[in-house]
Amino acid sequence: MAERPEKMKPRLPRGFVDRSPEDIRAVERMVARIRAVFELYGFEPADQPLIEYTDALGKFLPDQDRPNEGVFSFQDDDEQWLSLRYDLTAPMARFVAENYERLPKPFRSYRSGWVFRNEKPGPGRFRQFMQFDADTVGTPGIAADAEMAMMMADVMEALGIARGDYVIRVNNRKVLDGVLEAIGLGGEDNAGRRLTVLRAVDKLDKVGTDGVRDLLGKGRLDESGDFTKGAGLDDAQIKRVLLLTSSTGEDLTSALSAMSGAVAGASQGEQGVQELADIGAMIAAAGYDDGRVKIDPSVVRGLEYYTGPVYEAELLAEIPNEDGQIVRFGSVGGGGRYDGLVSRFRGEPVPATGFSIGVSRLMTALKNLGKLDVSDVVQPVVVLVMDKDVESLGRYQKMVSDLRKAGIRAELYLGGAGMKAQLRYADRRGCPIVVIQGGDERAQSEVQIKDLIEGARLSAEISDNAQWRAARPAQVTVPEADLVAEVKKILAAQAADRENQ
Amino acid sequence: MAERPEKMKPRLPRGFVDRSPEDIRAVERMVARIRAVFELYGFEPADQPLIEYTDALGKFLPDQDRPNEGVFSFQDDDEQWLSLRYDLTAPMARFVAENYERLPKPFRSYRSGWVFRNEKPGPGRFRQFMQFDADTVGTPGIAADAEMAMMMADVMEALGIARGDYVIRVNNRKVLDGVLEAIGLGGEDNAGRRLTVLRAVDKLDKVGTDGVRDLLGKGRLDESGDFTKGAGLDDAQIKRVLLLTSSTGEDLTSALSAMSGAVAGASQGEQGVQELADIGAMIAAAGYDDGRVKIDPSVVRGLEYYTGPVYEAELLAEIPNEDGQIVRFGSVGGGGRYDGLVSRFRGEPVPATGFSIGVSRLMTALKNLGKLDVSDVVQPVVVLVMDKDVESLGRYQKMVSDLRKAGIRAELYLGGAGMKAQLRYADRRGCPIVVIQGGDERAQSEVQIKDLIEGARLSAEISDNAQWRAARPAQVTVPEADLVAEVKKILAAQAADRENQ
Repeated sequence: MAERPEKMKPRLPRGFVDRSPEDIRAVERMVARIRAVFELYGFEPADQPLIEYTDALGKFLPDQDRPNEGVFSFQDDDEQWLSLRYDLTAPMARFVAENYERLPKPFRSYRSGWVFRNEKPGPGRFRQFMQFDADTVGTPGIAADAEMAMMMADVMEALGIARGDYVIRVNNRKVLDGVLEAIGLGGEDNAGRRLTVLRAVDKLDKVGTDGVRDLLGKGRLDESGDFTKGAGLDDAQIKRVLLLTSSTGEDLTSALSAMSGAVAGASQGEQGVQELADIGAMIAAAGYDDGRVKIDPSVVRGLEYYTGPVYEAELLAEIPNEDGQIVRFGSVGGGGRYDGLVSRFRGEPVPATGFSIGVSRLMTALKNLGKLDVSDVVQPVVVLVMDKDVESLGRYQKMVSDLRKAGIRAELYLGGAGMKAQLRYADRRGCPIVVIQGGDERAQSEVQIKDLIEGARLSAEISDNAQWRAARPAQVTVPEADLVAEVKKILAAQAADRENQ
Repeated sequence: MAERPEKMKPRLPRGFVDRSPEDIRAVERMVARIRAVFELYGFEPADQPLIEYTDALGKFLPDQDRPNEGVFSFQDDDEQWLSLRYDLTAPMARFVAENYERLPKPFRSYRSGWVFRNEKPGPGRFRQFMQFDADTVGTPGIAADAEMAMMMADVMEALGIARGDYVIRVNNRKVLDGVLEAIGLGGEDNAGRRLTVLRAVDKLDKVGTDGVRDLLGKGRLDESGDFTKGAGLDDAQIKRVLLLTSSTGEDLTSALSAMSGAVAGASQGEQGVQELADIGAMIAAAGYDDGRVKIDPSVVRGLEYYTGPVYEAELLAEIPNEDGQIVRFGSVGGGGRYDGLVSRFRGEPVPATGFSIGVSRLMTALKNLGKLDVSDVVQPVVVLVMDKDVESLGRYQKMVSDLRKAGIRAELYLGGAGMKAQLRYADRRGCPIVVIQGGDERAQSEVQIKDLIEGARLSAEISDNAQWRAARPAQVTVPEADLVAEVKKILAAQAADRENQ
């Protein structure tokens, strides 16, 4: 091991990140709100391990063209291949299949956790990220799909996103497949071309109708000069696909009618349109047709395993992206019906539907929207160490204990440095108050309490007295017995200031 | 791919488990209580990814004799080795080293999450489990160690473990190393023998003084006939080690005096005893010397990286083990000072101390002690589906929405089955109430509400009328407009019954 350098460089592999306290707290609040909605809807918590047999995950890799890529895999002692889960759905399907007899059906469950993709990371693309899913297994009824779409809307609102700033868009893979069948792209042989067509439809949002037309035909040259090869459809085929996408944004009746035209003659497609009509009726009955949930034929959802209704939650709010441009944030989650995922273990049909929220991505959006403010978290009160003998430390420790007993975050300064370094520490952590007892104060059984926030405000005012208001004293000396009461008083005043800002 | 079987068997790799809703809820409550204590002490949340470069973890593998075993590892695209973290301390050390300049020092942080061990699983031993850690980095002062021990005691009590049912035992690796030095086992060459001696001392609890004597000498034959080879110490060496362990359970003064005797002549050991004396004084000053925190020279803690004080949280409560025997539960967490872990990245001393709670293990204990009761979680009210037309489904959906708006967990039955199957579903999930509206009720604008819990109690009483009490009606029919109010009334009565049980 002579090659090992004396001092190792601390570093993280690409695509992995350490989270800040603010992000951790923001995610905790977010997850708690999502969980409350799922619980209210009667879903139960579930949790599968992060490692599964590769073959239990393998058939439904996110990108079917590269079946051996995209997942972190390694061999067990017995040579069997294990993988880190790349989503929460595949492990859920394994769990349900394994425990099918004893589970109530439909089985309604939710789960959150880390998933892993062994892919090239990029801005906003990580190799470890968090998802939060809900699934209903064991029912073919599209009432379950309608419920999922409405629950997603409720989640958005529970997170503080205003009605009109988001939309849940619903489509049906049977409609898309029906159109593909109608234009002669059915069958195993056309799987690759079908994917190219679906990808083109999926880009409607970004490239518009003309762009989709190019992508369905010979191909498209984008502004940056990149050329994307097209699906090579003829004009009649293109017209039919565009008839479908043209209904995007129309009212339900017009959309359904355009869709019917596009799938005409393909029985699967006609069934899909009928399902969307029923979902639309249920959503209307529950009052979610006020813009919260919309039928939209351009929703594709990438995963190959969807077999029926699919849905996508989109944030309409315009938020700065990584480059500072104001853009529509886009998808923060979605899902659909996947009737094949459990049944491949069971050898019998096991219908299922569910959705997944991209927690990390949604958190970024919510932070930018100011919906995940964690500035109400108060940092600890720091009791400074003026004398370092064991007896004094014991006395300081007692003050800290008294504050904690009163429910106040507090700590003894544990570093080895002098008064200035201690104040710098408190400042760096954004602490509200420090408590000081040197020899003089001890002789009088007193403590000095510094209000660091008021202190900072007062020093700022020297250079900016426009925002003047009556100051509190930034420092008081009180009897030791009044420590807790006085600290409480200052914290309350600071909280009131925050409220009034 | 002709070998792939038509139907795949759903199964989990050895040593991994799916968690039940009860376990998930129990852990959530537990983690929330632990977090509240850590926050109160001024610690900040932190989070590192689950994957790190193997070399960033590698030097401090739990078992130094098998450096390449114990972790799940795989190669990145660029051939560099990655590993799943096996604890939370090594990634924390990497993080602190990487961000040293910008972090406040001391850096006080806490983190919880899954860790992985690529080891042979056994009863209660899993390859994925959860830890919850707190660490203070950047202070050499033993006040930080004393604080850790007291914080562990506060955590135990926050979890509902009564004073006297747990103890935090504190020792110092310098004392152990001092004794080893004093008996001539210093230096690199004796590393293996030192480990054997430490393992023998660590077993005091289980094998008693005579057992430890055997393990320090030629070896020990246990009741099952297994022979453990000893450390091969001579009588004088053994006597010295036993002088140390003999002070276990004594009062602080006696323990310190015995320890002083055992380390006499070894300067490192003498320093260690002085540190324990200071920790003892601080603990006494804070009032934690009432049995909550004890100095105990038999605590070893396995990890090689500890360099100073070590501490262990032990549950004294007697709990049934896997075989149904009532045994003392033992260690549920511990830690110590590890001054080398961050500094290996920095090339300068970075003192640190921290501890880790075995969440899954502690949860098992707490459940057995009845401290993590989650029976107050109320399952959803189920609105049954009597008519399946879209209009009826919309009406049922509206009832569900109204219940949810009132904060009541509720769901529409989404399966395809008849009335009996629906009631069985509600029963299987332990639902408190079902709501029924068939054609007759609808004609009268009424709903039928069944109290399933009272219903079950009434049927049980037919066979056991000893526990008779005035029954509520197990079923009522009310105007549709009174649905929410009536459901609330029944849920309140059920809650009152639970309270009175």
